[in-house]
Amino acid sequence: MTGNMLIAQSGGPSMVINESLVGAVLAAKMSSKIDKIYGALHGIQGIFDERFIDLRAESDEVLLRIAKTPSSALGSVRRKPTAEDCKQIFEILAKHNIRYFFYIGGNDSAETANIIAQEAERQGYDMCCFHIPKTIDNDLLCNDHTPGYGSAGRFVACAVRGDDLDNRALGGVKIDIIMGRNAGFLTAAAALAKEDEDDGPHLVYLPERTFTIDRFVADVEACMKQYGRCVVAVSEGIRGEDGRAIAESFSNETDAHGNVQLTSGALGENLANIIRERLKIKRVRADTFGFIQRCFVGITSETDAAEARLVGSQAVQAATSGNYKSGTVAIVRTPGEGYNISYEIVPLANVAKHTREVPDAYINEAGNNVTQAFIDYARPIVGALPPTARFTALRK
Amino acid sequence: MTGNMLIAQSGGPSMVINESLVGAVLAAKMSSKIDKIYGALHGIQGIFDERFIDLRAESDEVLLRIAKTPSSALGSVRRKPTAEDCKQIFEILAKHNIRYFFYIGGNDSAETANIIAQEAERQGYDMCCFHIPKTIDNDLLCNDHTPGYGSAGRFVACAVRGDDLDNRALGGVKIDIIMGRNAGFLTAAAALAKEDEDDGPHLVYLPERTFTIDRFVADVEACMKQYGRCVVAVSEGIRGEDGRAIAESFSNETDAHGNVQLTSGALGENLANIIRERLKIKRVRADTFGFIQRCFVGITSETDAAEARLVGSQAVQAATSGNYKSGTVAIVRTPGEGYNISYEIVPLANVAKHTREVPDAYINEAGNNVTQAFIDYARPIVGALPPTARFTALRK
Repeated sequence: MTGNMLIAQSGGPSMVINESLVGAVLAAKMSSKIDKIYGALHGIQGIFDERFIDLRAESDEVLLRIAKTPSSALGSVRRKPTAEDCKQIFEILAKHNIRYFFYIGGNDSAETANIIAQEAERQGYDMCCFHIPKTIDNDLLCNDHTPGYGSAGRFVACAVRGDDLDNRALGGVKIDIIMGRNAGFLTAAAALAKEDEDDGPHLVYLPERTFTIDRFVADVEACMKQYGRCVVAVSEGIRGEDGRAIAESFSNETDAHGNVQLTSGALGENLANIIRERLKIKRVRADTFGFIQRCFVGITSETDAAEARLVGSQAVQAATSGNYKSGTVAIVRTPGEGYNISYEIVPLANVAKHTREVPDAYINEAGNNVTQAFIDYARPIVGALPPTARFTALRK
Repeated sequence: MTGNMLIAQSGGPSMVINESLVGAVLAAKMSSKIDKIYGALHGIQGIFDERFIDLRAESDEVLLRIAKTPSSALGSVRRKPTAEDCKQIFEILAKHNIRYFFYIGGNDSAETANIIAQEAERQGYDMCCFHIPKTIDNDLLCNDHTPGYGSAGRFVACAVRGDDLDNRALGGVKIDIIMGRNAGFLTAAAALAKEDEDDGPHLVYLPERTFTIDRFVADVEACMKQYGRCVVAVSEGIRGEDGRAIAESFSNETDAHGNVQLTSGALGENLANIIRERLKIKRVRADTFGFIQRCFVGITSETDAAEARLVGSQAVQAATSGNYKSGTVAIVRTPGEGYNISYEIVPLANVAKHTREVPDAYINEAGNNVTQAFIDYARPIVGALPPTARFTALRK
């Protein structure tokens, strides 16, 4: 099948989602199956609006600079298409003879791609529909990890590394609230900040374990007794005994996929107040890292960037191979010594909608930190942190 | 005068305060006037506790790695000494034959150094007392700028650059709350993120101008009309018509110098809610950058780091020259083309306690942004940002 190609970006931006976009475009430029290469603005919204830009008209120089630019260069959207929407989509795709469609995003975007692929078959529109993985949450099924996670994890690790040094200087308790609605991978990346035994983060709370205030207060108290200070990494998605996100009571906004908006400072402020009151500690501070952890300029993980580029080009190669009508590219880790990955083509339904949680082996028994197995897993994805040091006289 | 030296760090940490510490220690190692080199832990608190470490025992390799490490490697404190405290301080300094004392910090730390210098003269303790400038707030009198500002400004500019790209992708209003209690320099650094005419930050609010909610809402509304989106940088210290910090009503903690603790997410959340309700905009987000803007690992400004190193060594050279009993090192910009600075020795009283505000020439007439003069001032201190790009088809 030959025809034109359309690519778009969806969901929350990441530091390397443009690497995947550029990887796909560069691969498409070399394919004899693909004629015109369009970019739709703001995900599938750009199809309805017929807002396409000609990506062949962009020079390689611009493309390579775009690749190094955080956030979604084509704009993004959060919108789930209905069967009726798909009918309209195919009319527009047909009008432009678009036969290859690529959608870069997380599990919601994979769901969108899956709906479009299924409807295309049902409604008889001949096309090849691929999802290209991206999510800082690292929660896609079938993937060892996802593009975007390594760089966001690097931001978190560098922030907590600095924050721990800050806490050493002025003492007390510091609470950092980190993104990740359902999966604790990004919060867990905070643990990569720890080098010496007495380094923070001293406590790491993930949504995969039930969070209770009494247990939290007892953990902080024990840490203060042991180290005289305490740095805590907390997922925005931590859940109470009733299974509901603790932050939810402070927010009432939901998106089209039914996700509650959690990024608010209230969770951190409330946890800080609880520690202040119950443990009578004067210096308690909370930061909510917020949106900058996904788009900060200048902190990208090199491994993450390289892999993001490759999943983009792998998707185009798979789509134009003639072997698939649809699919997604999954990153698989090769067992054995050293860090090696390969790419597999997986059916859309296998990654759509559902999320992967942090495996039990990565969480300690007490449920208040990660294990060495997690560190070994995440370190090569995030990369080595910039070196820091302490005075020899002050190291234990 | 020959004798031993004591150096300590005070106030909020910065990314380059250890550069100044190491600059001073390396200069002291080469001075024939200085025998032992002690570091006091946690500022003047370390004198009362006699918690000193031997800095000559630390290898140059460790020292040079410490220099590149954010936060205060000797620990910090916020404590203002009384005359009685000084009596105790001099007893301890005499016991260790300490004749050279260096205190690295902001205007509060300069005040501490000034009190110690004055009391030493009054109480007849023969010593040389120097302040070494450090503050991310950039608010020291007599200084063109201060070590720590360039790197914190670089964090802010990189964060807002990424945040603006994020806002381009998903739209709506984004509000970023940035540190700076009395001076808006750090918030103003957000403006360095702007490259294209329609880039954010579109609005920049500093504590130097009265902030009114009505005016803020009107500014955002006008920006939404012009660009279809809006990125706003707001100082945590913005003040209402009564002159009080707007964030103050959300906090009631003060430190020993009478400073109210402002770093809370409440200001941003409240401003976001006001925009949501008054302008009926669905997607309004707020982040409070918090403490990570002063200690993030891996985003240091090279110029800032080099200058911080130099002010440390300049202080030791001035102190051991025999020409001063006390003083501080000020960074002065050389008039003319290009970026050139020199260092001057200034009396402690000239920088102690009081703060410098953002000059009128750096704030636009409407009071909702900075001028080109500010950009020209701050760019060489912060350095060029990592390059980013947009599609040619999407640039206006």
